Parts: sequence; structure tokens; C-alpha cells
Amino acid sequence: MKPVTETRSIIKLAGGNAAQVEDEIVTEYPLTVKLNGEEAVTMVSSPEYLEDMVIGYLASEGFISKLEDIKEIWIQEKEGFAHVTLSKENLITHMQNKRYLTSCCGMSRPGFVFVNDARVVKPLKQTTAIHADACFFLMNELQRTADIFQSTGGVHNAALCDENGIIVSRMDIGRHNALDKLYGYCLKNAISTRGKILVFSGRISSEILLKTAKIGCEIVLSKSAPTTLALNLAEELGITAAGFIRNSSLNIYTHSNRIKTS
Amino acid sequence: MKPVTETRSIIKLAGGNAAQVEDEIVTEYPLTVKLNGEEAVTMVSSPEYLEDMVIGYLASEGFISKLEDIKEIWIQEKEGFAHVTLSKENLITHMQNKRYLTSCCGMSRPGFVFVNDARVVKPLKQTTAIHADACFFLMNELQRTADIFQSTGGVHNAALCDENGIIVSRMDIGRHNALDKLYGYCLKNAISTRGKILVFSGRISSEILLKTAKIGCEIVLSKSAPTTLALNLAEELGITAAGFIRNSSLNIYTHSNRIKTS
Repeated sequence: MKPVTETRSIIKLAGGNAAQVEDEIVTEYPLTVKLNGEEAVTMVSSPEYLEDMVIGYLASEGFISKLEDIKEIWIQEKEGFAHVTLSKENLITHMQNKRYLTSCCGMSRPGFVFVNDARVVKPLKQTTAIHADACFFLMNELQRTADIFQSTGGVHNAALCDENGIIVSRMDIGRHNALDKLYGYCLKNAISTRGKILVFSGRISSEILLKTAKIGCEIVLSKSAPTTLALNLAEELGITAAGFIRNSSLNIYTHSNRIKTS
Repeated sequence: MKPVTETRSIIKLAGGNAAQVEDEIVTEYPLTVKLNGEEAVTMVSSPEYLEDMVIGYLASEGFISKLEDIKEIWIQEKEGFAHVTLSKENLITHMQNKRYLTSCCGMSRPGFVFVNDARVVKPLKQTTAIHADACFFLMNELQRTADIFQSTGGVHNAALCDENGIIVSRMDIGRHNALDKLYGYCLKNAISTRGKILVFSGRISSEILLKTAKIGCEIVLSKSAPTTLALNLAEELGITAAGFIRNSSLNIYTHSNRIKTS
């Protein structure tokens, strides 16, 4: 496996003094996914848990609906390819990233931009509620375990949690990859995401919110801010979104009944 | 024009007290670009300078090589479409995002992942050099003018500069959009980018480095970290990359001769 950071010789200027020093730089690794022999996408990521990432991506984009839809997966790491054989002909490639047009199909799902997402994502019911203290605890746990971020400043961290702590955490230079790696891990190991919490170091964009829904988490916790489109989606999909979790303060944006504040 | 932030009612918990308050949330706006009637891409961005963004994107992806290649551009803002008529039939759509394979075309350009990039990007010659103090000054200028980031915590900022200060700055929820907006502005207003400096709030990924090269800036300054792939590209393309610019310290990663440290 390629290392997730590499050492480079750089010039560091501090307090007026310049010196040549060794520095850790985060690796950016391109992996091209071939589906039944055809190039589908090139993902640029941190080079670890590549198989999980590809599985999570395929599920997230609606190429597969269960692990068994993958007949074979083979990561050709040195060359940068993931060869995936799907058990059925992939029928939806042509819809990839196509705009979702409410005007021509009679449905209206606020916030949905892409056809695939509207097709794949289902609203979540409430099965869990946690105390705000658990939010602070989980965000601390994420930061405590985020050693690569601390040494290179270049990655996002995501963790699947319950209120007792982290079940599995992943880091990646790409925001979405970290979530795909979690999703793939859960699918491969048959880990239920029901009632689980997603904790994330980055901003809650619409894409992150959609991944949260696809993974099946009811609560998404972030150190950072959400966007309007993400909140529209969270509202519609029944997801609790909380952000700016720092020390003992946080903002609850949607479905606040899952976070007890007293 | 849609506002770049919207007010939402949220629950804020601080020091043990929960209260319903109004909060500013950054707007995430989807814009689908149609090229000669065909859907090319959907960009999710902050809803300002949309025409500049589309022009910058088209130039960056190699759809146009000069402003005159666009016969007509019309932003249908409410519906979320940019209708672009190119003066010639677009011949390269089929190459979009296709993996660049050194093995089959006989060329070898380290770091290049996509065919379009290897085709569009040319190495830059050195025409400028600045003092490290100018780096600190420009990063301060970027942060001073970044008012949306300060109120919402949700955007990236980018500025085209010379050593005297900011020429034009743009913010966006999408890292790449901010750079596309700068590029489009320069193309539309015939602003030379020769010898200019790109100052950026976010991480220097390979995509950001490639955009820097496409815009034609010789120096990219960042508050954050670079990736290995970005540094490989910077090395090959003759670009000076400096990061972690904070107070009076910075790291110079490539082509250090453009930054004077004494």
C-alpha cells in the first residue's frame, strides 16, 4: 500500500529565519474505476481502504443496491485502477450527474439536484436521540484520533459513531471519500447504520448531507458550517444536522428533537 | 441575484443554555451549464458572478481557448441554467474527465491525471519574484476582506494579486469555483495574469494547482497544506507553491527562487 503521507524537502521560514527541513506532505492518489470494463470515474484520494471507498461510492451513486451486486472487485494499486464487475449490466450510467428537473417529471423534492440522488435516497425515521454532551464528546473523540490531520493539515476526518464512541473512523484528502470509505466498510462487514451518528470535520454541504442519508445515519455532527441546500435536504430527509461543535457550544439546524439540550 | 447567505432559525446551545436564534447560512446554488443545447455539467456554487464562473470553467476545461470562442452566454438564474453557444462545434466533450494514460500515448507528464489537463496546461517561465513579507501581507489582505467567511464559516476565498495588493478577490462555497470566477473575470476584462500571484484560503490540491497554471499565475500562496500530487505538478509546471502562511511563518515547497527570504 502506498503511504498516506510522504516526506519532502521544503524551505521553512519562521521568525525571519529560513531553513531547509523535511516535511510530511499528504499523498493525493488517483484511482480510476472501471465498471464492466468501462471507465466510470477517477477518484482522487488518500491511498488507503481503496476497496471500501469504491464499494461505498458505487452504493452511494446507485450503481449497486447491495454488496452482492458486485461480482468481482480488483484494485490494481500501482497502476491506479479499480476493476469492478457488476453482476448485472449497469443500466444507469447514462443518468450519472444529470440534472434533476422537477418541471418535467411531475415530482418535487426540494433540494434535489441530481436524478440519481432523488432515485437512491429515502427519508429516515427517528429511532434515536442523544444528549448534547454526547455531541461534544464525539467531536472530541474525532479530533483526538485525527493524527494525520495534525501532522499535515491536509485531510478531512469522518467517523461512524453511537453515543458511546467511535465505531469506525476514516480520513481522506477528499471530503466525500472519507464518507465513501465508511459506507463501504459498513457494507462489507454488514455493520448496521441504524440509529448511528456521522461525525465529520468539514462543512455540511448538500453532497455530505446526501451521503449521510445514503449511509443511513439520522444525525450528522460537524465542526464547521452547513449550507442552505444541505439544510433543505436535511429537513426533507428527516436528518438532524448540527454544526460548529466546539468546546461546549453547538448549533442545531434541523430536526432538533434528536438532540436533548437539558 | 440570489443572496449569498440566507437567514435561518436555529437552536444555539452555549454554556449550557439553548436558545432559538436567527443565523446566517451560506447559500449553495446549483447551476447547470448547457453547451450548444447539451447538458455539460452542474456546478454547485455561491450565487454571484455566475457568468464569470462559467467562462472561467469553460476556459479551464479547454472548451474554449479565448473569450471569442463563446458566441452567446445567457444565465437563466431562477431556473439554474447557463446556456452557452460556442462558435465552433465542441469536439472534446467525449474526453471530459477521461484518465490520462502515459502508457498508450507515449508522453509522460508526471502528476497529470486527466487528458484535458495535459492538453491545456503549459509550463510557466519565471518573470517575477517577491519578498516573503509580501506573502504575509497578501494573506492578511485576503483574510481582512473575507467577510462572508467570518460570518458563516462556510466559504473559500481566492484573490488575484500583485505584490502591492489584491487586484480582484472572490469567495465561493466551492474551492474551484472561486478560482473559475477569478479566471472568467480576467478573460472578460482582458486583465493580464502575467507575473501575478494567486492567494487562496484553502488547501493546494492538484486541481487547485492546475487551475493556478491555467489562469497563468506563477505563484500560489495558501493558508493551508499542499498535497504530493500538487507539488509534483508545481515542480513540473514551474509554479512556486507556498503554504501554511500564518503570521510571520510560511513553507516554500517548489521553485523557491521566486520568494526572497532575506
